[in-house]
Amino acid sequence: MKRVTAAALLFLSAIILTAQTPQPLTGRWLITSDFFGTTRYLRLDLDQKPDQLTGTLNGTQLKGSITGSHLALTGTSSDGGTSTFDATIQANTFAGTLTFTNPNDSPVTFHFTATPVPPLQRTTPQHHEFAPTVFHRQFSPFNKPVLTIAPGDTVHTTTVDAGGSDEHSVKRSAGGNPETGPFYIQGAMPGDTLVVRLDRLRLNRDWAGSDDGIVQSALSPDLAIKTRDNNKSIRWHLDLANNTATPDPASNPTSDHLKTLAVPLHPMLGCVATATGPAGAPPPTGDSGNWGGNLDFNEIAEGATIYLPVSNPGALLYVGDGHALQGDGEINGNALETSMDVQFTVDLIPGKRLSSVRVETPQTIIALGYSGSLDDAFRDATSNMAQWLTDDYKLTPSEIAQFIGVAAQYKVTEVADRNSGVALKINKSVLQTLTKTK
Amino acid sequence: MKRVTAAALLFLSAIILTAQTPQPLTGRWLITSDFFGTTRYLRLDLDQKPDQLTGTLNGTQLKGSITGSHLALTGTSSDGGTSTFDATIQANTFAGTLTFTNPNDSPVTFHFTATPVPPLQRTTPQHHEFAPTVFHRQFSPFNKPVLTIAPGDTVHTTTVDAGGSDEHSVKRSAGGNPETGPFYIQGAMPGDTLVVRLDRLRLNRDWAGSDDGIVQSALSPDLAIKTRDNNKSIRWHLDLANNTATPDPASNPTSDHLKTLAVPLHPMLGCVATATGPAGAPPPTGDSGNWGGNLDFNEIAEGATIYLPVSNPGALLYVGDGHALQGDGEINGNALETSMDVQFTVDLIPGKRLSSVRVETPQTIIALGYSGSLDDAFRDATSNMAQWLTDDYKLTPSEIAQFIGVAAQYKVTEVADRNSGVALKINKSVLQTLTKTK
Amino acid sequence: MKRVTAAALLFLSAIILTAQTPQPLTGRWLITSDFFGTTRYLRLDLDQKPDQLTGTLNGTQLKGSITGSHLALTGTSSDGGTSTFDATIQANTFAGTLTFTNPNDSPVTFHFTATPVPPLQRTTPQHHEFAPTVFHRQFSPFNKPVLTIAPGDTVHTTTVDAGGSDEHSVKRSAGGNPETGPFYIQGAMPGDTLVVRLDRLRLNRDWAGSDDGIVQSALSPDLAIKTRDNNKSIRWHLDLANNTATPDPASNPTSDHLKTLAVPLHPMLGCVATATGPAGAPPPTGDSGNWGGNLDFNEIAEGATIYLPVSNPGALLYVGDGHALQGDGEINGNALETSMDVQFTVDLIPGKRLSSVRVETPQTIIALGYSGSLDDAFRDATSNMAQWLTDDYKLTPSEIAQFIGVAAQYKVTEVADRNSGVALKINKSVLQTLTKTK
Amino acid sequence: MKRVTAAALLFLSAIILTAQTPQPLTGRWLITSDFFGTTRYLRLDLDQKPDQLTGTLNGTQLKGSITGSHLALTGTSSDGGTSTFDATIQANTFAGTLTFTNPNDSPVTFHFTATPVPPLQRTTPQHHEFAPTVFHRQFSPFNKPVLTIAPGDTVHTTTVDAGGSDEHSVKRSAGGNPETGPFYIQGAMPGDTLVVRLDRLRLNRDWAGSDDGIVQSALSPDLAIKTRDNNKSIRWHLDLANNTATPDPASNPTSDHLKTLAVPLHPMLGCVATATGPAGAPPPTGDSGNWGGNLDFNEIAEGATIYLPVSNPGALLYVGDGHALQGDGEINGNALETSMDVQFTVDLIPGKRLSSVRVETPQTIIALGYSGSLDDAFRDATSNMAQWLTDDYKLTPSEIAQFIGVAAQYKVTEVADRNSGVALKINKSVLQTLTKTK
Repeated sequence: MKRVTAAALLFLSAIILTAQTPQPLTGRWLITSDFFGTTRYLRLDLDQKPDQLTGTLNGTQLKGSITGSHLALTGTSSDGGTSTFDATIQANTFAGTLTFTNPNDSPVTFHFTATPVPPLQRTTPQHHEFAPTVFHRQFSPFNKPVLTIAPGDTVHTTTVDAGGSDEHSVKRSAGGNPETGPFYIQGAMPGDTLVVRLDRLRLNRDWAGSDDGIVQSALSPDLAIKTRDNNKSIRWHLDLANNTATPDPASNPTSDHLKTLAVPLHPMLGCVATATGPAGAPPPTGDSGNWGGNLDFNEIAEGATIYLPVSNPGALLYVGDGHALQGDGEINGNALETSMDVQFTVDLIPGKRLSSVRVETPQTIIALGYSGSLDDAFRDATSNMAQWLTDDYKLTPSEIAQFIGVAAQYKVTEVADRNSGVALKINKSVLQTLTKTK
Repeated sequence: MKRVTAAALLFLSAIILTAQTPQPLTGRWLITSDFFGTTRYLRLDLDQKPDQLTGTLNGTQLKGSITGSHLALTGTSSDGGTSTFDATIQANTFAGTLTFTNPNDSPVTFHFTATPVPPLQRTTPQHHEFAPTVFHRQFSPFNKPVLTIAPGDTVHTTTVDAGGSDEHSVKRSAGGNPETGPFYIQGAMPGDTLVVRLDRLRLNRDWAGSDDGIVQSALSPDLAIKTRDNNKSIRWHLDLANNTATPDPASNPTSDHLKTLAVPLHPMLGCVATATGPAGAPPPTGDSGNWGGNLDFNEIAEGATIYLPVSNPGALLYVGDGHALQGDGEINGNALETSMDVQFTVDLIPGKRLSSVRVETPQTIIALGYSGSLDDAFRDATSNMAQWLTDDYKLTPSEIAQFIGVAAQYKVTEVADRNSGVALKINKSVLQTLTKTK
Repeated sequence: MKRVTAAALLFLSAIILTAQTPQPLTGRWLITSDFFGTTRYLRLDLDQKPDQLTGTLNGTQLKGSITGSHLALTGTSSDGGTSTFDATIQANTFAGTLTFTNPNDSPVTFHFTATPVPPLQRTTPQHHEFAPTVFHRQFSPFNKPVLTIAPGDTVHTTTVDAGGSDEHSVKRSAGGNPETGPFYIQGAMPGDTLVVRLDRLRLNRDWAGSDDGIVQSALSPDLAIKTRDNNKSIRWHLDLANNTATPDPASNPTSDHLKTLAVPLHPMLGCVATATGPAGAPPPTGDSGNWGGNLDFNEIAEGATIYLPVSNPGALLYVGDGHALQGDGEINGNALETSMDVQFTVDLIPGKRLSSVRVETPQTIIALGYSGSLDDAFRDATSNMAQWLTDDYKLTPSEIAQFIGVAAQYKVTEVADRNSGVALKINKSVLQTLTKTK
Repeated sequence: MKRVTAAALLFLSAIILTAQTPQPLTGRWLITSDFFGTTRYLRLDLDQKPDQLTGTLNGTQLKGSITGSHLALTGTSSDGGTSTFDATIQANTFAGTLTFTNPNDSPVTFHFTATPVPPLQRTTPQHHEFAPTVFHRQFSPFNKPVLTIAPGDTVHTTTVDAGGSDEHSVKRSAGGNPETGPFYIQGAMPGDTLVVRLDRLRLNRDWAGSDDGIVQSALSPDLAIKTRDNNKSIRWHLDLANNTATPDPASNPTSDHLKTLAVPLHPMLGCVATATGPAGAPPPTGDSGNWGGNLDFNEIAEGATIYLPVSNPGALLYVGDGHALQGDGEINGNALETSMDVQFTVDLIPGKRLSSVRVETPQTIIALGYSGSLDDAFRDATSNMAQWLTDDYKLTPSEIAQFIGVAAQYKVTEVADRNSGVALKINKSVLQTLTKTK
């Protein structure tokens, strides 16, 4: 674990304390508020000039003034609501009350504290060996971090399988994708992007659990009738030497055709997620959203990089639900569920707010869409890629349409969970032929 | 609150203690287990005969034996998994370990306690006046009950609006459908059905909050473009004397056409729910499932009866999210959100397990379906009604098809939340022409 | 608005008949072209002034000139394509070639004839008794009209059932919704709206055919398995005296519960359609689109008025597929299919182009949406109503959202055909409280 | 064109004529009937034994008798309908009337002719050079065959682009995927499978047409708003030497980023189809179904083999709608539409009835699903593959689930047309590890 020396801390606070009020407030602030027992984070950007104070609160323009140590700020958002800060400046923070009024609601006032968001400090990358002892079944901001790491650091750890069994076949948790983590990433702030690169993802035992059911989303009426008696747990043998998986005949005694089946192993992580914001209900580890989660996408494998939005200080990264291999769709509900040896490296992109999950492999960029139907997931993946091409490649709407039209590869990630998922992949070889502009 | 006298308890235990082992174990038991820190409830039914002990554990047939105070039970489920009880009988309970083995998983052993589920005891119905002081934003089994009531009892209470404001326009909670409750219903056991009749549902203030947005599920591309600048909070005036609602011109200054709009008030509850089981993540109060929740169905109004599955001892009933009126679909995301004066009466149907929510009005029976798409919700509502017609009217599959084919009324309840909903209604006047059979 | 006095009309026709080039070309024209053997209709609006000739061709602005009897017109559409007319004026028509060039296509030239579209001439309404002898199974523009009628006229006729049997139980056609018609409405031009009022819709025999199957769109996996042996044709008895339907026990011998079933009769037409344009493939009579068709909506009953777009001269109206009654969804694939006694009155709204089907009953206005999923049909119905509220009630986008939000009633019309349908109904009693503006 | 010698015909008829009545009727027969002006084909299989005559008519068991030259056959299907043949045997055919009675319909009698379906005769494969002069816009059984070929024969021909322009950029047809064909395959009978191998598929001009729109199915509300001004036809340059495509800057003048874009060419056929049966409405060439059609799947490329059900004598094969390349989804509605040089070889699998389209490439087997939503298409593709694994690999329902679960690759083919499509691919390398059984 990395340590910040007390001397460094002293030095930092000295700088802050020696400056006189009014402090130069210009910069990015994290507003932490207690809203009826619920913590909420807001991003405030201030621009302090000698003759005026302006700012932006989650998109709403604010104007303000400083009188002695008193700070006042107010602004009206496009929906007709008004936000008013009434605060006292103290050293390098300010605190006070924030009042929201809105035509369709009663006015409400609550307490907040503002802390400055410093520029990202990069340190010498560290390697952490981490052996998990506790496993979590919600992508919750309220679980205690198991390890604090810095941007650039690498963690080597393990995950238990979806049912909670570890590499020694010992049950360590109730099932439902118990996760390793959360990892606290120093400097991560709500509104940043967390970057997780899967450096290494390897099997660490010789069996996986699965079944012969078919999930509802994959069943047309005729297939439902045909497979109505399917209801078997299946154990698969993982042949690490030959890199193949075969169903164990003992769990499949009446099967004549799968005895020699040999499917190439392709280890992947079913879950990679940041904790969701503290204002909502923490989702179960079988769910997914723009924070990642149970994506069950078989290209989240060794060598992939995942980009996730940060909703809490420290980001709070979870990993779990390893699959020895998974067909697209994960139509059995289970893939080949197994424990995993995982090594990943994290990084941050400060101030970049992603609306959805992005993945990068050596050959492709991949925009994911997850929703209640494949049709909506398809649209979400397309929107997500359109935003990516706007952000990073500056394509116009016409160019986006032309480019996706010729370059898109759409595959189904999964239909096994509450959300169905679609991945929109584009080869970097085609991306690289785009004309760069300033 | 109802009270069981200490004398009665003493008398009860006396009966049990005087009997010698083996006790008559025949009957329904609630198995409470601690599964890696998570409570799980199982239903066990035992049939003890002089020469044999058999049982059923959530559908799996068991065989067992009693040796002194030692109880052993084992059985294999259809998926190949084995459940084995190893317990000690003490007075009117037994406790010990339960071991699950499954071909696709590591074996696991955990501790359990079995408590007998007594027949439902009906008492003289009580009327409870309840003024809420705390509001919850998850349909959680972990929130402390605010009141314990008995089957047959009536509660008169209030709910705050979806944003947390009460009948005095005072903000009492963070928004997101804060709920009144949970109410603990004596004798309710996992596997029972809770019956909630809305005796009275009345407005208690003269305004509601809403907006002019349209939710994504209701937007075709052309309507998305047409309404792209919609982004206004709208306050509605509720004219209780004339029983109509009109948008407040102040929040709608550019509107020429809605000044005289008068829509009939039709108070309804957006949320009615039992707590979900303790093994999963508690859902937010904007979600729905077979436990009810944020159904946003405008026929859950005064006079309606809602049937919900029970997943926890005491059922833990939540109510909230009153709407002065709501169009089908709730396409603004908000209906006319307001506080509400609510009176309801509860009852229990012991041992009846519902797979989905049912509603009854004086004129109709209504099966609900909620899922990630209207197409799936339509199928779910149809399945739900088919099960109802099987359970209560003994219709064969052919009869079910013919009957729904001619009698169905399908309406969209809402598309505003993560689930979309469809209601399948059948008039009682047609139901009553079915031929009764034994 | 421009006014043409009777004298002017006389003068105008005098000019046309007697005057020499240039003719006054101002007005609406129907362009009929032969495009590689396919007829296409285009709407051309011209505005001839002494010093300039301008026009609009299906939304594209044109500029032109007249030199002697030679007419030239050209314009570029928003997608970059160019349309160029090169024509000769002859009496009250002009004809020549029309050339399209487009960056993404080869240029193409074809012949056309332009005929003026006269103002609608209303005549004394006639009553027509029509006994059909031929029945059509496509909503085709190529079927010969069976009767020519004028706007305002009334037709009394009959329809055979979906299987082709008439009121005497005589099979008159192959099945698949054979239609009565097409009726040619004098003066109807592509781009107009046809109005069809169902004055009278009555049963004319005492039985209907149906079955006990459930269509795929209504089957969740569990219901598919439950009803997997359903496969019976069912005959229903129509009790015209008591206005109820009951399944015939002879076709349902094992059913104990439906013997006394009595469902109220509610005669409706499954199909009302105009022919589709001649450029495409004529759709089968089981299909639907913005031209109407197999809508299977149980409120297309006596007293309803249907508004349909016109795609051919004469509109070519088809009616058929009577149902003695139909549950929402038509989940058996068949409703109670029967022959029908039909009386309807037609009218025209010249120059009003509908994008989708609208229905009006004495109590409601109803916008229909039909698409490959209920989710898309829901969006289409919403868009359709939004357009209606824009066209006829001048609501702004914000007002549309607020109004639909509180006033919508969404029901499922059918899921039995290739398209699923959703109806968005609004009560006239609420519509009437809108503030009228100029 | 292949020729059957008169001598062979004489020989064949001689055999038939010399035999005396009763002929041995055992074998497969094609029943051609005139059903109210509509031709219908039925498959009849007869088994004539000295003491009994039995048969199967589209799944219904029949029993019959022969008295002199009179043939009687009757049977009742599972839905309660009865089919009765009353026929006269003449040489190698029989003809008469067929009567259907059904509880839910009026009885109906119509004329039929039965012709024996001979075993497939294989001849020396021929090569045909075919230059199309007519192009069709419906997959109709009523279009006159342009060429008759035999199983095993190869055809080298060309297709025009979706807009009707040929390799010389000459417009040859109205747009909408005009097709080359239909090709009549000798010996093909309703109920057979047609096999089409694309031996060679090459570009034959240097440009393609496309646009920058996005189809409705790919547009979430935010992307609809972002791209609301997209409306440009785009011409693409096809660089056959470098095997890449680039948008023509002239049709894209404001685009800075696509000037150097180079997307690899990958020629494919958007349409491969057999004609639909004569009883229904011929579908337009933009539609798809289990008969193939406008599949817009970018793996229907050189080297692919397509398996299609046969619905008419001669099968009537259509090909068209070449794309120089197409991204998955075809989200612009147009791919890179161009003319094509096509060579294909046909074959037949007599008596094998496919329920849906199958494709084979050197590396994969591919089951297609097309429906009104991606969710339904996904289920259809899964069902289609399950049937394939049942038919050809004898997998049990449990094995099917396990195998698809680990081996599936699901990609979206297109969302541009009325149907959306999903392809379920399985690598032959995995298929080959299945255990073969008798």
